[in-house]
Amino acid sequence: MPAAEPGRRSDCAVACTLDILGDRWSLLIVRDLYFAEQLRYAELAASGEGIPTNTLAERLRRLEDAGIIERRRYSERPPRHTYRLTDRGRALGPVLRAVADWGLQHIANTRRLGQVRREESAPPAG
Amino acid sequence: MPAAEPGRRSDCAVACTLDILGDRWSLLIVRDLYFAEQLRYAELAASGEGIPTNTLAERLRRLEDAGIIERRRYSERPPRHTYRLTDRGRALGPVLRAVADWGLQHIANTRRLGQVRREESAPPAG
Repeated sequence: MPAAEPGRRSDCAVACTLDILGDRWSLLIVRDLYFAEQLRYAELAASGEGIPTNTLAERLRRLEDAGIIERRRYSERPPRHTYRLTDRGRALGPVLRAVADWGLQHIANTRRLGQVRREESAPPAG
Repeated sequence: MPAAEPGRRSDCAVACTLDILGDRWSLLIVRDLYFAEQLRYAELAASGEGIPTNTLAERLRRLEDAGIIERRRYSERPPRHTYRLTDRGRALGPVLRAVADWGLQHIANTRRLGQVRREESAPPAG
């Protein structure tokens, strides 16, 4: 077989996709953006699984480099951005569905969710 | 929403599946076993992406704990095992296909592979 391109483990389409998305968080970011037109950084950070902010920042950069999401500045001072899926990112819909379907059928007490929000504690009384 | 079960990030079916399979290697092990009736440890270790052996051992244990693969002893001395997918593991077919399809369409020069074998160097001449 031909040698893999530099930086690749192989030419396998599964391996190359996992080089981008093969971690515990990236597909959850894609999930949240899939069900929203666009999200701000703080909204992504507030998603139900409690992604550490340095992990979120690193994954957003990686997903942007891979052409899966795009970033738009909506405030100059301070610099703030919104994130949305590109067409290439939106094309991950079947991956999300297949992963969700497997989980629903094979892991107890799981749900199909658009976006999970962190459990908020009630505001302090008084 | 109800609180997630202990050890879970949330009840989201995607998140729970990624808790098991969300890394760069697990789905490649599933891929190799999907296209083989069964494989020995050495055959899995020889797959095209060059998985480090300690990573392979850890992932096999994790996949077995998750009921995705099963291990059968075929030699007592030394103790040697074969691995195969359970029904639950075989049900990951649609996930593999969706991931492969996305890679084929969106990453240049990727191929759909049953199993990628490591490039062997030619035997020394003479």
